[in-house]
Amino acid sequence: MACITFLTDFGTSDEYAGIMKGVILSINPLASIIDLTHHIDPQDIVQAAYIIHAGYKFFPKNTVHTVVVDPGVGGTRDIIAVRFEDFFFLAPNNGVLTLFIDQDNLDEIVRVENPEYFLDKVSQTFHGRDIFAPVAAHLSSGLNINKLGKSIKQSDLVQVKLHRPFLSAQEELTGIIIGCDHFGNLMTNIRPDDFENFLQADSDNIKVSIGRHRMTGLSRSYDSRASQHPLAIIGSRGYLEIAVNQGNAMQYFGVEKGDGVRIIKS
Amino acid sequence: MACITFLTDFGTSDEYAGIMKGVILSINPLASIIDLTHHIDPQDIVQAAYIIHAGYKFFPKNTVHTVVVDPGVGGTRDIIAVRFEDFFFLAPNNGVLTLFIDQDNLDEIVRVENPEYFLDKVSQTFHGRDIFAPVAAHLSSGLNINKLGKSIKQSDLVQVKLHRPFLSAQEELTGIIIGCDHFGNLMTNIRPDDFENFLQADSDNIKVSIGRHRMTGLSRSYDSRASQHPLAIIGSRGYLEIAVNQGNAMQYFGVEKGDGVRIIKS
Amino acid sequence: MACITFLTDFGTSDEYAGIMKGVILSINPLASIIDLTHHIDPQDIVQAAYIIHAGYKFFPKNTVHTVVVDPGVGGTRDIIAVRFEDFFFLAPNNGVLTLFIDQDNLDEIVRVENPEYFLDKVSQTFHGRDIFAPVAAHLSSGLNINKLGKSIKQSDLVQVKLHRPFLSAQEELTGIIIGCDHFGNLMTNIRPDDFENFLQADSDNIKVSIGRHRMTGLSRSYDSRASQHPLAIIGSRGYLEIAVNQGNAMQYFGVEKGDGVRIIKS
Repeated sequence: MACITFLTDFGTSDEYAGIMKGVILSINPLASIIDLTHHIDPQDIVQAAYIIHAGYKFFPKNTVHTVVVDPGVGGTRDIIAVRFEDFFFLAPNNGVLTLFIDQDNLDEIVRVENPEYFLDKVSQTFHGRDIFAPVAAHLSSGLNINKLGKSIKQSDLVQVKLHRPFLSAQEELTGIIIGCDHFGNLMTNIRPDDFENFLQADSDNIKVSIGRHRMTGLSRSYDSRASQHPLAIIGSRGYLEIAVNQGNAMQYFGVEKGDGVRIIKS
Repeated sequence: MACITFLTDFGTSDEYAGIMKGVILSINPLASIIDLTHHIDPQDIVQAAYIIHAGYKFFPKNTVHTVVVDPGVGGTRDIIAVRFEDFFFLAPNNGVLTLFIDQDNLDEIVRVENPEYFLDKVSQTFHGRDIFAPVAAHLSSGLNINKLGKSIKQSDLVQVKLHRPFLSAQEELTGIIIGCDHFGNLMTNIRPDDFENFLQADSDNIKVSIGRHRMTGLSRSYDSRASQHPLAIIGSRGYLEIAVNQGNAMQYFGVEKGDGVRIIKS
Repeated sequence: MACITFLTDFGTSDEYAGIMKGVILSINPLASIIDLTHHIDPQDIVQAAYIIHAGYKFFPKNTVHTVVVDPGVGGTRDIIAVRFEDFFFLAPNNGVLTLFIDQDNLDEIVRVENPEYFLDKVSQTFHGRDIFAPVAAHLSSGLNINKLGKSIKQSDLVQVKLHRPFLSAQEELTGIIIGCDHFGNLMTNIRPDDFENFLQADSDNIKVSIGRHRMTGLSRSYDSRASQHPLAIIGSRGYLEIAVNQGNAMQYFGVEKGDGVRIIKS
């Protein structure tokens, strides 16, 4: 069993993702390759950081999660391989793994620098094909992560600055919208823990404000409100989400990535 | 051999489909997972009903067809598992299987309610990940469908009302456009059987009207008409289709889903 | 090991690609199927010709590359199967393999005409499902290519006319933009060999002109220029590419497919 995932901003209109899969199967014909998504907004490291952290656990042990959101390709940034819990992560050292650095010690971190595991000819524009894919294939075949290069310290990992919910002077917990899904559901950076820690409130006794709208309490399912009515809910990624039953919350509220969301104790 | 398909309205811009595949491979590493499409119009149960019915036969025996077009997720709707011919179907009980109910007795229908085959923690917003994916994986591994829950009767299956072609007072067979594909080809709800039953006419002696356009007879291939000329043809799904050779029929006719198509005997 | 790729203009909003995979797994359950891309511009044979030629090598030996960009489906065009180097190609005989004809003798070319390897019922609108998929599955299972039909000569292969870079009276090498990728990078039809042959110049002593912009020399990586600055680079497909560091070159230059690119010796 050897599973490899891809999380990239390559889109699917080009052949790039397909080529990477060809490289992998050339090395490890038994690999199962899963597209987590190729539709990260171009070069949006923050978005990728949230998605990989929310999703990595749902895969088989020893899955190699390969994150190629890599504006610095061909430049001086390093590529890193990480072992954490029962998973491998392969990514540019540009902050896409920030949410892992935060919470736990990582078991093993190496700089990927051994060309023995790269394609023979490495381009300066497509390390996904020339480095990430073959290295992922080798890891999925059981290669010891230390063969890839020297260990580096956790403090050498680049972090991106993530907006964190904070308590305002008005005793409001303030977060932001970090993305919008295919259904128009708005994902925030606020988690249930944040209510408890900042407001000493649980899901039932909060109010959620977005723009001039205010929602009382958290819903337990989308259809707990009438059709086309807005609601706040803990989404499947574990974050507070704003939705509209059978509708599109992004259009309903006219908001966008980065806009604020406030929570008060009711 | 264990094949699982997905037909959803999740799109591919998010990681949702990828996560479901991770859950499946965690349970059945040998499953072959095929995306039928994730681009059903959001919550369009009727469209999904036509697509799954037109396509299910082209897959290996014992394929588990998993339909997650599920506006009622987390609410009171049931999830059902069905055995029909050599296939399994897993879907919300909301009408997506309506076209199967119509034509034949289904071999086995159960309500999916045994949490032993779900993920440990079931969210209220993503049953695709927490219920459909693991249950599909278990079915693909050979689980007896009756382990999932109690049998229910065919009459307990929810049906959606589908527009059926009918004969108007003017002796015209009237159908509608039920969708438009990537090439702009217009799929109708009319099948060859309908000509014969309603008009006692075969493909060669009918005229097809759409808006103010009229086409004589059915074409046998797209390029049987000059480039950019419209034509009527029996499409690959088995329904009457309106196309434009090397062009886009939706743009050519300026029509949309739900608009009428009429057939007369010539 | 049996790998099959698809390069089509089917898009992914319909179930067409999924159905083809079902047909393949019904015949060869062990096939690994890779989407090179389904987003070739509708019926753009030239674009497909470049993509398959730039990418075919990155796959395992004996991969069956299946190209279904097929405006003449159901008409009089032939379907051909080709063996070249360690790969198979399956395509309509409409020019999508033009770049292979150019450079080398092909090992084996047959007309695909033996219905024993097709689906029982062949439609006139979806040969991808009824002919290409089952034939690809049989080839991937080890079927001798000569079982598919009679050998034909290389001179029987249809070629599309491709724009070739040429030297203008002003001693400028003139090429065109042949496509734009998801990032907005502009792919040209000019290769490094062309500089050398036409201009007796290498990468370091050329200037690249597009519209009224002029870039000196080739960059070695995207981030060798400041953010939002344009650059010329040899892209991952082996052709000269115009990009904007962390930006979108198509928007930056306001150009489109078919527009000219000029190179002079500096």
